[in-house]
Amino acid sequence: MSDMVRVAVDAMGGDNAPVEIVKGAVEAVNECSDLKICLVGQQDVIASELTKYQYPEDRVEIVHASEIIETAEPPVMAIRKKKDSSIVVALNLVKEGKCDAYVSAGSTGATLVDGQVIVGRIKGVERAPLAPLIPTLKGDSLLIDCGANVDARPSHLVQFAKMGTIYMRDVHGIENPTVGIVNIGAEEDKGNALVKETFPLLKNCPYINFVGSVEARDIPAGVVDIAVCEAFTGNVILKMYEGVGNALLGEIKGVLMSNLKTKIGALLIKKALKNRLKRFQTSEHGGAPLLGLNGLVVKTHGSSTAKEIKNSIIECITFTKQNIPAKIQEMLGSTLDEFEE
Amino acid sequence: MSDMVRVAVDAMGGDNAPVEIVKGAVEAVNECSDLKICLVGQQDVIASELTKYQYPEDRVEIVHASEIIETAEPPVMAIRKKKDSSIVVALNLVKEGKCDAYVSAGSTGATLVDGQVIVGRIKGVERAPLAPLIPTLKGDSLLIDCGANVDARPSHLVQFAKMGTIYMRDVHGIENPTVGIVNIGAEEDKGNALVKETFPLLKNCPYINFVGSVEARDIPAGVVDIAVCEAFTGNVILKMYEGVGNALLGEIKGVLMSNLKTKIGALLIKKALKNRLKRFQTSEHGGAPLLGLNGLVVKTHGSSTAKEIKNSIIECITFTKQNIPAKIQEMLGSTLDEFEE
Repeated sequence: MSDMVRVAVDAMGGDNAPVEIVKGAVEAVNECSDLKICLVGQQDVIASELTKYQYPEDRVEIVHASEIIETAEPPVMAIRKKKDSSIVVALNLVKEGKCDAYVSAGSTGATLVDGQVIVGRIKGVERAPLAPLIPTLKGDSLLIDCGANVDARPSHLVQFAKMGTIYMRDVHGIENPTVGIVNIGAEEDKGNALVKETFPLLKNCPYINFVGSVEARDIPAGVVDIAVCEAFTGNVILKMYEGVGNALLGEIKGVLMSNLKTKIGALLIKKALKNRLKRFQTSEHGGAPLLGLNGLVVKTHGSSTAKEIKNSIIECITFTKQNIPAKIQEMLGSTLDEFEE
Repeated sequence: MSDMVRVAVDAMGGDNAPVEIVKGAVEAVNECSDLKICLVGQQDVIASELTKYQYPEDRVEIVHASEIIETAEPPVMAIRKKKDSSIVVALNLVKEGKCDAYVSAGSTGATLVDGQVIVGRIKGVERAPLAPLIPTLKGDSLLIDCGANVDARPSHLVQFAKMGTIYMRDVHGIENPTVGIVNIGAEEDKGNALVKETFPLLKNCPYINFVGSVEARDIPAGVVDIAVCEAFTGNVILKMYEGVGNALLGEIKGVLMSNLKTKIGALLIKKALKNRLKRFQTSEHGGAPLLGLNGLVVKTHGSSTAKEIKNSIIECITFTKQNIPAKIQEMLGSTLDEFEE
């Protein structure tokens, strides 16, 4: 492997494309000397954006793709019909080994589905989970799976726990990360059929540091490094973070602006409050990796700004240098017969 | 039916029993002239608490029960072994028609299981859902089901939607309440197997005002009056409310106390902030009813104070006077053949 990490960036995807995407990519390449970027999308549009910036020209390449997949398009249809879309062209760069990683703020459905179809799963991986970091009082925890494949089986959840462990250990430097299964009570006999069946499998899995059930209430407090769940549950958790956070912060803003007294109070606390709550904002985090593929696929928020794009791209460097796919293959390979049907 | 509503209160259940429970009951009976209370539990303990207060003695009765079911006890075992516990004795008062409703801050498991076993489900009701009100920016929404019976079937969710509609309309006065199914996307083809199967049933159900999928993100904004979901999902939503709220408010408190400037700011906004956020606190709400039983069973938070106990008891009056069980039976009876197996 070359020491240079090559990241294919979907320049056309997301609410703020191409402006913020190109800006984030340029910032990343200016910050990291071991990074090469392929900006994938409409040649003239990207070239025109690039004229705004200073950057090492030998490390930024434009790869032309004439089509754009919209967020609302059904992913499987889109990939078949739009073979020259930025998503498909960029994912093919990863498949063909021309790039190590892919970053997109575009259609979640297309990225998840096409990531699996085009880049392909590592041998032995049954499902590729989407695994975002979520902010907690103790730092960040990994929520795995928040992806598009709902109704998981117990064996899938065990693989999520293993892949999450490798990722948190080797990309985020957390030694022996704790793993909890999202449940509706702390006792082993609590839960739905999936959780009850999965619990003993996790308990007896030697490759992870399983600490038992974690109630949703305790996730924001950061009681586990890795919260394992089925994708429907993961999506609800992620969206509740956003929903409750927005509602509360909206109320607080309303209070601060309600009269002269509170407005003066607001002036005194504003900066400190903003700094502290920044950690709870998504733009401070990189995107979420789709784990278990033959390469790295990262989905960032549709509303990503340059900062989030930059962070997502930079995270690809550690992921690639740590050779996460090989480590996942190795761990799953050594235990593959457990789940062979 | 007599105009007097009779509520059996578990005086021994909850973190603050018996002090706050007895206090809340006395406050309720002093506030409402159409209310009679049976305080169920250890005679001498309750009598001693009651000496602290002034209240109409003909409307407060003590019913002795010698045993207490602890939160950690397995519900089914507890009910068999502890026939003279406050929960069992109080629920029997409802079963025998001596009381109209039951309120407890004690073991959730025992209340949910024993409520169904002792009081019994209305004919035609397949499952009795726990349905708390949750605070939103627009007021309150009903989250149904948050109970102990996970892995629901589509027909259960349809009944939840119907029972929730009756409850929100006749107890909380919301005309033609909107119903949404909790989902991971807005489109009809999104969701897990349960949601996909339930969606068309709700869409074609003439008794409810179904508005489609609701994403968890939008629940705190109050986009629907009734959010229907399976109990595991409901529990996760409820606990995320608590968890994210606590984490954020903890951070904000930390900021306000961080230096002299922010402390002065805090003084200026404290009162307004407290007033506004009060609505997001559980003690402002009554307990959650277990719908679909032959009588009313209400579970309040384990940490309930007198205020929440009082609110829970008072809510029983409207519920009973509106004759919700009869209305549920009527609605389900008229559509029972839809689901007969």
